[in-house]
Amino acid sequence: MTDGHHRLTLAASIVGTGTSPLSARWPGTRWDRFAQWDHYRRSAQIARRGVLDAVFVSDHPAHQRDTHRAPGHVFDPVALFSAIAGAVPDIGFVLTASTSYNAPYNLARRIASLDAISGGRTILNLVTSFNPDIAANFGHAPLQSREERYRRADEFVDVLTRLWDSWELGPDEPPAGPLWQADPIDHHGEFYDVRGPLTVPVGPQRRPVLAQAGASGPGLDFASRHAEIVYAALLGKDAARRFRAELDARVRAQGRSPGDVRLLPGVNVVLGDTEADARQRHLAFQGVRDEDELVARFLARQRAAGRPALPASVDPDRVLDPAWFEPDPRQDAPIGFARALQDLVASEGLTARELVTRHGDPGGHRLVVGSPRQVADALVDWWADGVVDGYVVHLPLLHADLERFVDQVVPILQAEGVFPRDYEEAGATIRDRFGLPTPLPAARAVG
Amino acid sequence: MTDGHHRLTLAASIVGTGTSPLSARWPGTRWDRFAQWDHYRRSAQIARRGVLDAVFVSDHPAHQRDTHRAPGHVFDPVALFSAIAGAVPDIGFVLTASTSYNAPYNLARRIASLDAISGGRTILNLVTSFNPDIAANFGHAPLQSREERYRRADEFVDVLTRLWDSWELGPDEPPAGPLWQADPIDHHGEFYDVRGPLTVPVGPQRRPVLAQAGASGPGLDFASRHAEIVYAALLGKDAARRFRAELDARVRAQGRSPGDVRLLPGVNVVLGDTEADARQRHLAFQGVRDEDELVARFLARQRAAGRPALPASVDPDRVLDPAWFEPDPRQDAPIGFARALQDLVASEGLTARELVTRHGDPGGHRLVVGSPRQVADALVDWWADGVVDGYVVHLPLLHADLERFVDQVVPILQAEGVFPRDYEEAGATIRDRFGLPTPLPAARAVG
Repeated sequence: MTDGHHRLTLAASIVGTGTSPLSARWPGTRWDRFAQWDHYRRSAQIARRGVLDAVFVSDHPAHQRDTHRAPGHVFDPVALFSAIAGAVPDIGFVLTASTSYNAPYNLARRIASLDAISGGRTILNLVTSFNPDIAANFGHAPLQSREERYRRADEFVDVLTRLWDSWELGPDEPPAGPLWQADPIDHHGEFYDVRGPLTVPVGPQRRPVLAQAGASGPGLDFASRHAEIVYAALLGKDAARRFRAELDARVRAQGRSPGDVRLLPGVNVVLGDTEADARQRHLAFQGVRDEDELVARFLARQRAAGRPALPASVDPDRVLDPAWFEPDPRQDAPIGFARALQDLVASEGLTARELVTRHGDPGGHRLVVGSPRQVADALVDWWADGVVDGYVVHLPLLHADLERFVDQVVPILQAEGVFPRDYEEAGATIRDRFGLPTPLPAARAVG
Repeated sequence: MTDGHHRLTLAASIVGTGTSPLSARWPGTRWDRFAQWDHYRRSAQIARRGVLDAVFVSDHPAHQRDTHRAPGHVFDPVALFSAIAGAVPDIGFVLTASTSYNAPYNLARRIASLDAISGGRTILNLVTSFNPDIAANFGHAPLQSREERYRRADEFVDVLTRLWDSWELGPDEPPAGPLWQADPIDHHGEFYDVRGPLTVPVGPQRRPVLAQAGASGPGLDFASRHAEIVYAALLGKDAARRFRAELDARVRAQGRSPGDVRLLPGVNVVLGDTEADARQRHLAFQGVRDEDELVARFLARQRAAGRPALPASVDPDRVLDPAWFEPDPRQDAPIGFARALQDLVASEGLTARELVTRHGDPGGHRLVVGSPRQVADALVDWWADGVVDGYVVHLPLLHADLERFVDQVVPILQAEGVFPRDYEEAGATIRDRFGLPTPLPAARAVG
């Protein structure tokens, strides 16, 4: 166990119609619910029924290229989560936004507004955006290098936190003289010039909580400097332990305490009434008849992602060579998923069949397939050993699988005393729920 | 009456704590309610009780300089109105956003999201932002000229409307092949390069409704090309009639029909149980003992705004000379308020005392002070003559005066049959409520 071990925390992804490529056309669902506000509100209501800490949306401000899957990022996350904040009490928000395509003043104001409106239930998941399709919606400039994106992101966070601290509202009684005092931040940096102060006063949890998901070198450096919650792709427990140790070391090197950083990997959960039922549902959600087909698809996707060392033919029942999965360091796509897969193969000596059935959604997050009891045990296992602080749970079909999770897994976690039974126990703000310290005011601008 | 005369439409401003400079410290109110989400939600709920068409917020993404008045623009309007959309049914939204400090893709997506979430109840009030305090929060570039700002705004609207049209979602049944077809807009202009398509499909009223408030030459040109609702400062009925005629002519010159453009001036309403009570409340809200003090303050403000022709001493009971109020054409501040005041003085031959008590909030919108019956009559008067289509009502104290308006004035308008009794009668979308045509799809990009 790590020092300052905190209770299990859980967020649920409510992106689109669910992670199954067939979720849009699933029998009994409305195919275009990805564009229906009611669909997202209901997801948040179900998450609240399960006392989940937050709902999560990733973001991609560009139209999705794959026209055979439901689009995942239809509504602007600020509009979507603000609407949910108006409609659904208690639930928290993990909101993803790009440091490359927002003005820091606008984003600071929007996130502070949502945090005030929701009573301190906002986590800002900062991404630097790597996709040329997004870049093309925001001007003709070529995509920036990863290094430049993170240099910009560093300065962005500095502006953000200083703006969030720039206006401390006075006591309940109206002051006799001026109604407030707020000082400019007078930031002049490499990328931004921002005077401030912000129009939104310091909020209910002082500052919205910062999360970060990048797993490249610059991404991990960025996380160790700024992130309070780290979201990551961790496929195996050993790999997760190593990642945690590396993160903790980097956090310490920045003069911060590892106890002030929560690690929340993503996890793909497929539930069934029994293990056999869950495995069958998993195959159905992937649209395959059997495991052989799953293996073939996994290998084909890896090849398409550019793994030059992967042989043309792989025996599904022979132990895989981790060198086959070496990610191309020049790739612009996020490096975390590729690295996580390679780590898993290296540490657990798996065959391709074992990989796709026991562990990994190909190139994605950890996969847990099983009965409610098995899923609860798998989630508690890593947490009880102090490897992780919780999870962002991804589910194949919304809403059916979110309801299964909330109605079947959460009660087991509650009965074991590792998860709260209501929001009074869970905590009012995100900082309460995740046991995160309230930050000290940022240093005032000098000169 | 103009052709296509539509029923009276009403929006209420819910900016801050109300227009009275004393509204923050008003007895019986909480001074810091401008930073409380509940305050705005309640404003929207009261407006809904009055079957108002929409609530309105202006915007100013910079901290207010006057520290003796409650700040008006605390929360980001997208976050605020989205939260209200989640919490309060039926009410519409007039959302103000700047074409100078938003990326068109982001703004198109946010407004389309709010329009989808609210079921087609969104009006986007585009401003070009003139304030150096705002510019300083968005980089070190000097303020653009008015001409450049409007050239940029024209291109911005073009991108916006094409993005809003870029993804027409198919029928209720899931298509057999690709789930959707959406085409890039491939815009390459002077200021913007935007590929598209938008992530949000065409919405419940096809496109959000566009409003515009600029009254400078370039501002009026912009409105005549793009605006479906024009918001203006019109102090006197004759001036309003002339403005309407000018607007109609400009709209026709653009090949559009004047019947497709609604004119909604702002109006400051001060209600009392009787006329005398209302006049007394007006003085109290202005923090003055008598009319002489009101006159003195009005003249001092005009001098401060830069009216070189205004004499140092003015007899409050002598008819004013319109030449004294000539606005400086080089001023960066919006020109509409100054021009409206000059028009009123020119057409009605008023003394300063008459001006401040009967007509004008100094340099602001038309002022109507009186009993509920008098206020209702004053509002109906201009509308019945076809001069205006409705109003954006500004009130001195929130919530007390919004409750007065909704409970005392609206029933008179309903009894006279000029205003709907419920939202079924009012119409579901903004286009229904304002009798605005559904736009045709924008032309596809060529080449």
